[in-house]
Amino acid sequence: MTKVAIIGASGYTGLELVKILHAHPKFEITYVGTSKGGEKLSELHPSLKGIVEFDVQKSDAKEIAQVADLAFLALPHKAAMGFAKELLALHVKVVDLSADYRLELDTYEKHYCLHEDKENLANAVYGLPEIYREEIAKTSLVANPGCYPTATLLGILPFANHIDENYPIFVDAKSGLSGAGKKANDVTQFVNINENMFAYNPFKHRHSPEIKEKLKLVTKKDFEVNFVPHLIPITRGELVSVYLKLNSKIDAKNILEEFYKNEQFVRVRENPVDLKSTAGTNFCDIFVAQNGTSLFISSSIDNLLKGSSSGAVVNANIMCGYEENLGIPIFAYVP
Amino acid sequence: MTKVAIIGASGYTGLELVKILHAHPKFEITYVGTSKGGEKLSELHPSLKGIVEFDVQKSDAKEIAQVADLAFLALPHKAAMGFAKELLALHVKVVDLSADYRLELDTYEKHYCLHEDKENLANAVYGLPEIYREEIAKTSLVANPGCYPTATLLGILPFANHIDENYPIFVDAKSGLSGAGKKANDVTQFVNINENMFAYNPFKHRHSPEIKEKLKLVTKKDFEVNFVPHLIPITRGELVSVYLKLNSKIDAKNILEEFYKNEQFVRVRENPVDLKSTAGTNFCDIFVAQNGTSLFISSSIDNLLKGSSSGAVVNANIMCGYEENLGIPIFAYVP
Amino acid sequence: MTKVAIIGASGYTGLELVKILHAHPKFEITYVGTSKGGEKLSELHPSLKGIVEFDVQKSDAKEIAQVADLAFLALPHKAAMGFAKELLALHVKVVDLSADYRLELDTYEKHYCLHEDKENLANAVYGLPEIYREEIAKTSLVANPGCYPTATLLGILPFANHIDENYPIFVDAKSGLSGAGKKANDVTQFVNINENMFAYNPFKHRHSPEIKEKLKLVTKKDFEVNFVPHLIPITRGELVSVYLKLNSKIDAKNILEEFYKNEQFVRVRENPVDLKSTAGTNFCDIFVAQNGTSLFISSSIDNLLKGSSSGAVVNANIMCGYEENLGIPIFAYVP
Amino acid sequence: MTKVAIIGASGYTGLELVKILHAHPKFEITYVGTSKGGEKLSELHPSLKGIVEFDVQKSDAKEIAQVADLAFLALPHKAAMGFAKELLALHVKVVDLSADYRLELDTYEKHYCLHEDKENLANAVYGLPEIYREEIAKTSLVANPGCYPTATLLGILPFANHIDENYPIFVDAKSGLSGAGKKANDVTQFVNINENMFAYNPFKHRHSPEIKEKLKLVTKKDFEVNFVPHLIPITRGELVSVYLKLNSKIDAKNILEEFYKNEQFVRVRENPVDLKSTAGTNFCDIFVAQNGTSLFISSSIDNLLKGSSSGAVVNANIMCGYEENLGIPIFAYVP
Repeated sequence: MTKVAIIGASGYTGLELVKILHAHPKFEITYVGTSKGGEKLSELHPSLKGIVEFDVQKSDAKEIAQVADLAFLALPHKAAMGFAKELLALHVKVVDLSADYRLELDTYEKHYCLHEDKENLANAVYGLPEIYREEIAKTSLVANPGCYPTATLLGILPFANHIDENYPIFVDAKSGLSGAGKKANDVTQFVNINENMFAYNPFKHRHSPEIKEKLKLVTKKDFEVNFVPHLIPITRGELVSVYLKLNSKIDAKNILEEFYKNEQFVRVRENPVDLKSTAGTNFCDIFVAQNGTSLFISSSIDNLLKGSSSGAVVNANIMCGYEENLGIPIFAYVP
Repeated sequence: MTKVAIIGASGYTGLELVKILHAHPKFEITYVGTSKGGEKLSELHPSLKGIVEFDVQKSDAKEIAQVADLAFLALPHKAAMGFAKELLALHVKVVDLSADYRLELDTYEKHYCLHEDKENLANAVYGLPEIYREEIAKTSLVANPGCYPTATLLGILPFANHIDENYPIFVDAKSGLSGAGKKANDVTQFVNINENMFAYNPFKHRHSPEIKEKLKLVTKKDFEVNFVPHLIPITRGELVSVYLKLNSKIDAKNILEEFYKNEQFVRVRENPVDLKSTAGTNFCDIFVAQNGTSLFISSSIDNLLKGSSSGAVVNANIMCGYEENLGIPIFAYVP
Repeated sequence: MTKVAIIGASGYTGLELVKILHAHPKFEITYVGTSKGGEKLSELHPSLKGIVEFDVQKSDAKEIAQVADLAFLALPHKAAMGFAKELLALHVKVVDLSADYRLELDTYEKHYCLHEDKENLANAVYGLPEIYREEIAKTSLVANPGCYPTATLLGILPFANHIDENYPIFVDAKSGLSGAGKKANDVTQFVNINENMFAYNPFKHRHSPEIKEKLKLVTKKDFEVNFVPHLIPITRGELVSVYLKLNSKIDAKNILEEFYKNEQFVRVRENPVDLKSTAGTNFCDIFVAQNGTSLFISSSIDNLLKGSSSGAVVNANIMCGYEENLGIPIFAYVP
Repeated sequence: MTKVAIIGASGYTGLELVKILHAHPKFEITYVGTSKGGEKLSELHPSLKGIVEFDVQKSDAKEIAQVADLAFLALPHKAAMGFAKELLALHVKVVDLSADYRLELDTYEKHYCLHEDKENLANAVYGLPEIYREEIAKTSLVANPGCYPTATLLGILPFANHIDENYPIFVDAKSGLSGAGKKANDVTQFVNINENMFAYNPFKHRHSPEIKEKLKLVTKKDFEVNFVPHLIPITRGELVSVYLKLNSKIDAKNILEEFYKNEQFVRVRENPVDLKSTAGTNFCDIFVAQNGTSLFISSSIDNLLKGSSSGAVVNANIMCGYEENLGIPIFAYVP
């Protein structure tokens, strides 16, 4: 058994981590922390009452290092890098669900804030196992990808060599409200979202440079990526539509299937993907349609799972030498 | 007062016509028909009980001609052209909400069925008043545009001269379920749609040739249009995202505002448009964002109103010489 | 034309008042106020852009009295009574949508706060026209009923003489989220409400004494009323289920129909009522089912309209000698 | 390992059985059947693709008996009793999720149809483990309770000795749409349900006699039970409100806690229960509020799980001598 800590247990991704790790055959939760501490876990998450009872601690790196070998950080950016730095120095492995170690230094500082842990940033591995499986196995610090980049990159990467670089890539993404976090605000009120849909931050979302940077790292090409996220009136799930122009008439379906033929958590679909088939699971479902050299790629994930918490546990599985699918949720919230 | 008939009163667009025309200061409903007849209108639409009580007739063109000067056809394609032909011969003006007179002959027959009224087809006017206002004023037969083409064309047309023709236009459209009609089927079951979203008929929807053909007619250019509709878990409303590449760095916002400065039913918005602000109204709200020569246009309409029934009554207003906005719904279903 | 003011235009009931009064043939909006002022109305309610443009004032009773004959107060309780007192002294008629003049003094002070306008309270008329039509016609101050009491009282009152007083009346009420107001809070977040339902304040809601008091006033009997409201994941509408025991085996359907045979805004239904048939309208739909002396009454209203703003305009119509249904919305948000 | 068959795998309860049993440490699915057969399981349930691949058989009792020791029947009533009879004769244990063995003969035949397996009916055990745990352990045939009776009985039974028999019990139940099954019909269309709520079959639902009969069996008292179910616009979950009059002023909260202090799947709640905290789990959450001798009991279950499939697997666990909670879902679909 590997002892693990969950830091930042009050939010949705923290809750998902608790659920997955509590049922995991090889990980044992030994520490649950928030910035405040002093609560019962079931006070933070009433649905856990009678199942997982934990005293929530005010997060403290030294205490964590005494009881855990690996820590999941479900913290806001900036808060995460402080903890990660301290934990790594104390030889605790870290899977960071925030943006703090996802980007190269200049990209990060342009879109977020000054970075306070440049040394570890240089060694962090981007936690997309379909691309960086081997690197994840060897690292002590995984930067878990953003939810939008997860679905977008998994859709685009199989076609990287076939994209017309002169033409922009357009990404029309749709996310449920759990992606907006737990904190009350005017935008996320029920009355404002229900029976409604709208774009937000078009061409300006912070996940856009993450997509662009990773595309460049993997493909060595500098694509123009135009990313437009939308809110849709559902709780869980993210549907990403990618529109791009190919540089030649390939058999897109075949290329997609070849690319993922050995991946157990990416399913190439015959029909357009839907959100419910991946909600509650670590799957990314992908569908592609083609009109000559015009391509439509549609990918679907659960933003809180494949796009965050279950993706993080897959990375932890790899880091600890366990089977990649150990304890990972596979059954969708259907119906 | 102009006497009007509603043929095809059992569906959602029929219901919207009843509501608008009943409250209209210059139109008087004198005939309500369905293919079956023999019912009370409030049996077809229980919400009308105590408000609009009508004996629904088995639709008959000769009877209609005796009591009405203008007929709205809210029928499926193919059924519509039979009625329209007969009504026009009897000097009844027609606003056809079906696809039967929207397309040029060869386009129609390729995507629908053989056309049985080629003569009138040649003279029908496409009922988008923002483009064909003068022609609508003079015709006896208006072909009301499809809902997707309405929102898409109103978004693209202002930029027609600035689009790079060497690249495809991508249209990512999202529609509520009222667009799928009233008839029960597996896809439109609540459990299948709720908390879900998915594309359907990507690159193959029948509204795609309509968009392409009208774009060509107005601009004299032959664009590649790739249209991907999605279903979203709401009842009313259509959000259309257009992605395209410009041929030069224009001021897109300014061009949009100029194009619609005299249009009362198109509102150019500062912030990304939402569905609720147009639901229940004849407005089309449009927003544009620009990244160099990459353009994102977002337009929002009520699919049953601007995209169908209130658009049809606007056309009837113009055909009869009334003010364009007479009796047209303007207040959104907000909250 | 009667000149009217809307005080408290920032909330949902204020918005509904704007929509109804703007389209009303006899009322002219001459003043729109909020506690802050200094905005455009379409900044408060973006859906009004291009339709109703008003400079919103910082509400001032003296200024209102100069331009308006009647004022609608869409304010929180306590704020309302200050304005009402001043406006009435300046001979402006008042329709108050808050709780301030709904209850008798002791009931009010027990459940709300100290009353600061006892004189007018003594003369206020409870604005349920189905019961107090004649009194409304003669008064200068109408206290518009709460939404829950409206639907509940209209359901119970027809049976008042037939209820077994020894047995409690149970009211199981379900409300959409617009009833919770526009302000963001944790409970009303989308993620908390969507796919969810729960009771709140069981047996303790402040509308409970209002129901009990009005029942007693009308029937001279002292019923035990147990009121349990629930939130349901919809925006508009209120469904109230009343369960009670009769003192004899009456023909409940017949009694209900007789009671409302002359009422244009109450519809007795053959089948269980639904929310959509009344949403967007001033109707109260009622259904009754009977098992011996056990009675189930189900009533449906739009909480913002019949339960608030359109009910208020009906009262204003009566106060000003206009037809009761003048300018009142009758077409439901269907589909 | 116990080998189990699932008969009737095409519906929602069949899907839930597949998910629970596939992950169960002691049950092994050896047979999956439908009335038609000849499909892949992932064709019936696309979300299972890549996880559980099974050839679905045309259900045949003899074939089942060769490969399975216990069969779950997720069939419509009437279809179930044919299979159960044959399977029991072949020494296969049966958990029947239909109504066929839930009721006493006369009650069944009055509300359903003629019974074709009276012998086994006489020996069937009603599968509510909180009441019949010991009997379930010894039987070969468990009749799994209906979803409404499960939530209702668990709410009422703790108070059975304290209910005033002279007054009716009222049950106001609310169910999500998954309870209406998978088959398309007009009522369950998205547009009809979304933003809507309504009662159906008030006082006449077939779960009403089941509640009444079981109450009588357990308490030896003959209560009048008035049951009114409603549809609410959600997919999963059932909220049941019970209203009744006590025969004395008990401490209801304390009685409830005492009654369930040893039950792991019933949680007594401090605050009104909600649907999301039980969705996806086998929990029944219960809350009680009291006004003198008037009682409000609110219970929440997942209609497909505690109200059907996970309840069935709990029964199978007990029948096979396994721990009651083995393989039973406990983590709610939250957020």
